[in-house]
Amino acid sequence: MSTKNNDIAQQSHKVSMDSSISSLSKKTEKKASMKKPAKKNEAHIEGASQIGIEVRKDADFSTWYTQVLKRSEMLEYYEEVSGCYIIRPLAYNIWQEIQNFLDASIKEMGVENTYFPMFVSQRQLEREKDHVEGFAPEVAWVTKAGSSEMENPIAIRPTSETVMYPYFAKWIRTHRDLPLKVNQWCNVVRWEFKKPQPFIRTREFLWQEGHTAHFTQEEADIEVRDILELYRKVYEDLLAVPVIKGVKSEKEKFAGGLYTTTIEGFIPTTGRGIQAATSHCLGQNFSKMFDILIEDPNAPAGSDGKNAKKLYVWQNSWGLTTRSIGVMVMIHGDDKGLVLPPQVAQIQVIVIPCGLTVKISEEKKRSVEKKVNEVVEELKSAGIRAKSDLRDTYTPGYKFNHWELRGVPLRLEIGPRDLTNQQVLSSRRDTSAKEPIPLADLTTHVSAILKTIQKDMFEKAKKIYDDHRKIVLKWEDFVPSLDDKNLVLVPWCEQEKCEDAIKERSSRSNVEQEPEDDKAPSMGAKSLCIPFEQPQNPPILEGETTCIACDAFAKRYALFGRSY
Amino acid sequence: MSTKNNDIAQQSHKVSMDSSISSLSKKTEKKASMKKPAKKNEAHIEGASQIGIEVRKDADFSTWYTQVLKRSEMLEYYEEVSGCYIIRPLAYNIWQEIQNFLDASIKEMGVENTYFPMFVSQRQLEREKDHVEGFAPEVAWVTKAGSSEMENPIAIRPTSETVMYPYFAKWIRTHRDLPLKVNQWCNVVRWEFKKPQPFIRTREFLWQEGHTAHFTQEEADIEVRDILELYRKVYEDLLAVPVIKGVKSEKEKFAGGLYTTTIEGFIPTTGRGIQAATSHCLGQNFSKMFDILIEDPNAPAGSDGKNAKKLYVWQNSWGLTTRSIGVMVMIHGDDKGLVLPPQVAQIQVIVIPCGLTVKISEEKKRSVEKKVNEVVEELKSAGIRAKSDLRDTYTPGYKFNHWELRGVPLRLEIGPRDLTNQQVLSSRRDTSAKEPIPLADLTTHVSAILKTIQKDMFEKAKKIYDDHRKIVLKWEDFVPSLDDKNLVLVPWCEQEKCEDAIKERSSRSNVEQEPEDDKAPSMGAKSLCIPFEQPQNPPILEGETTCIACDAFAKRYALFGRSY
Repeated sequence: MSTKNNDIAQQSHKVSMDSSISSLSKKTEKKASMKKPAKKNEAHIEGASQIGIEVRKDADFSTWYTQVLKRSEMLEYYEEVSGCYIIRPLAYNIWQEIQNFLDASIKEMGVENTYFPMFVSQRQLEREKDHVEGFAPEVAWVTKAGSSEMENPIAIRPTSETVMYPYFAKWIRTHRDLPLKVNQWCNVVRWEFKKPQPFIRTREFLWQEGHTAHFTQEEADIEVRDILELYRKVYEDLLAVPVIKGVKSEKEKFAGGLYTTTIEGFIPTTGRGIQAATSHCLGQNFSKMFDILIEDPNAPAGSDGKNAKKLYVWQNSWGLTTRSIGVMVMIHGDDKGLVLPPQVAQIQVIVIPCGLTVKISEEKKRSVEKKVNEVVEELKSAGIRAKSDLRDTYTPGYKFNHWELRGVPLRLEIGPRDLTNQQVLSSRRDTSAKEPIPLADLTTHVSAILKTIQKDMFEKAKKIYDDHRKIVLKWEDFVPSLDDKNLVLVPWCEQEKCEDAIKERSSRSNVEQEPEDDKAPSMGAKSLCIPFEQPQNPPILEGETTCIACDAFAKRYALFGRSY
Repeated sequence: MSTKNNDIAQQSHKVSMDSSISSLSKKTEKKASMKKPAKKNEAHIEGASQIGIEVRKDADFSTWYTQVLKRSEMLEYYEEVSGCYIIRPLAYNIWQEIQNFLDASIKEMGVENTYFPMFVSQRQLEREKDHVEGFAPEVAWVTKAGSSEMENPIAIRPTSETVMYPYFAKWIRTHRDLPLKVNQWCNVVRWEFKKPQPFIRTREFLWQEGHTAHFTQEEADIEVRDILELYRKVYEDLLAVPVIKGVKSEKEKFAGGLYTTTIEGFIPTTGRGIQAATSHCLGQNFSKMFDILIEDPNAPAGSDGKNAKKLYVWQNSWGLTTRSIGVMVMIHGDDKGLVLPPQVAQIQVIVIPCGLTVKISEEKKRSVEKKVNEVVEELKSAGIRAKSDLRDTYTPGYKFNHWELRGVPLRLEIGPRDLTNQQVLSSRRDTSAKEPIPLADLTTHVSAILKTIQKDMFEKAKKIYDDHRKIVLKWEDFVPSLDDKNLVLVPWCEQEKCEDAIKERSSRSNVEQEPEDDKAPSMGAKSLCIPFEQPQNPPILEGETTCIACDAFAKRYALFGRSY
């Protein structure tokens, strides 16, 4: 985090003391909210306290994001090392849900888990030229152990191609050793110098990285798509986050790879695209650099003493990171805080006793609390992750806010009258819709509502994304459409120099406006992907449709946008 | 790995070429087997090839260990960074089995998973004096990112007390925030300068580290023991490795902690003890250094304006590492390779078609192979991890060796005659015992055998451990007992200077023998633990029984031994 705005912060951002929030945490949040002190009042949510969310998502997105993460207890800023964050249990649990799904899925595909060292020598790191050019500026180097200077500095992995592939060369001797498919769940370090943002751009992050070697390109191609489909499932089915599948431009593909497929998400509040996960075909680039080759089984060493024909293997690598958690928060969260899709929520249902005023007898209170516990047990035995909040030092209203902030998908309220009516009152986190549920039919109803929430959250987000991907055919509509917080689908020539020109021409300084704040960034648009599913109306006509930005003919529609 | 013996290796250690083993791997193995070239012939297993194990476990333990790990494909040496190793799927899968058990168990205790950054600033690392003294000599420092020198070097966590506790101070405000219980599964780096050994002593390793804060010491004490009991279960119930519970001496306890409980294992082949896992009570040392304190709920801030009484929290930390895998290999492995306990074996049963000589008809062959597949499916549907080996390029004998090397607990052989007799022949990896199993009763039988193998492996190892813990009452028996590959239980005064003296007096140079090889190490004996379960015969009499090594009175029996 930058500290240069700290003085402004001290003057403009007066907050009342609250014993539950330390001065340290306030300082961090101040830094994040410093960009537009003038707008503070406009963004402020009336009656909000420091326990909840104080600013509106659509008025001050970056402060909102920080507050949601910190106050829901998903994340803590790590004061010691800029760009590093503490993933707290609420968020880590989501990561474990993702792991459970993905780990089981890739094992079914024959991928095996492994663990390679986090350290890589300079010599190996630099073996693939394009690859090292892509990563070298962000590599963290260990140069000292205890009080001894090391003879040769060693790098911390930014990704593990160069760690693993010398061993692929060792293990792969014949076609019978193929396919080789390994994966590891680990941390990696990319010491970026751009402004960090929790989950989205961090210097250390968690991910899985899969690395596979195949006999044929066809087999590699199929796997690239199979993995991308798993990643789509993680986002759409678990996190309720819609994504677009496509292939990256040459400029944006993985450093050293042949081609990169990607799923691209969209943050409506800022109108920016975000890379969600990537699955790369590395082709034979790395196998040639690392000598990963086999004897051609169709042209083995002859009895005449001639050597067998050598074939380089085809390789893929693919990864999904903790960024996914940040994307989910940005898309679903609202002015009350986090909104979690039931599939990944650690607590799916919170059950709260209500209406226990001073007029209610002790006996009645106890029977309400007993019912709360019974409901929780019944839900749990049906496999629903339910929890009660029986704390007697807090009011129901406080508890409602507490669990809404933390994104619990469904709340059940039970009061004395509900006991009489043999029902509970349900309240959905995503829509605030309330509905009584008969106790006789509790688990069926709750299961159904959770399914509906999951579906509705996805569909709502999908509609917004769909509405904000605009087909743009003329350059003059390009920047205005971005400014309306859209991504644009444009006919494109797929040339890198044109891509550079689009970025340049769409940056704020060229349209003669001042960058206002990070909601309307000055950055130019990048190509996000060339979607697999191409718009049909109007179609791209070969040798006829021209590129959105130059005189060449367009090849396909490409998705462009400002992005994270 | 040291390379100083390399020349001797080149002269004395001639091996025939084998296309399946690269020259690189040979070099590594040579290094490990260099200590006693003169004994080479004695250690060599007759008829052994480089595909299997070539040396006897009891003749050249360190070469045997390296060969078992590499050739079973559990592990690969990482050439780039000394002291780092590649954990391959066969071993990583065991780690995942341990994770599954431990993760579920600690969650039941209310521990939540989290992830803190791997980096820690020098300032935080040095806040607890004893702690930093314990770890500083082994800390790896990052001083450079990309091409920029960092202003302040940052350390890679050797353990996370100093990473986490500043945030404990922030999150813990009142007794209602207690207990706080978090855990993380992660990598840590301890840049040891002692000779590394795969799994046992490595510069990077994987572990879980639990960190908890409690209102009372009593609560902390209970948790320390509960965790130690979970660790015992991991070793004894999953890995079939017997351990002894106890408390560490003051000298051997965790740097900065109050006391350390431990489970101690034993490697019979070398007669050395090995620390298996530790659970520490940190007392209030860290909470005082990191200001982790709460208002005393029994003496809150008064209306008279007096401040509330502050109480420092009681803390624990506890960890179990991938060392556990190495201990398991060392204890159970034999001259054929790995022997895996069924509980953690990725493949519990391997099913192999046999007796398919040239005289057997194609139809008969196909019906045998069909039966092999049916048996595998039947076992799988009963939850048994079974796999077939239908490769037609290899003989049954080759396959037997292949899966024995990889430690698969049970082999089933199916031949044409077995089809007629409606049975399969089973062969136990641990004992080589063979037994026909009627197909009609397959899963019941196989389940029972796997349970028996698990039990027998543990009991066999436990008997050896029990037989090698000797009660020694006179100093003159101390070193001879160690030399007979025992650990010793001795009456001890529990003074550090006496502990130092014992180490000095029991080292090889003092008994006027030359260090021969690492099976009879020159090292002195350390105190391994003071066992919770104390020998009763003879009892320690207060103010009467004297220490094994000095004039002071003994307090308790302590377990001493040479150790890893």
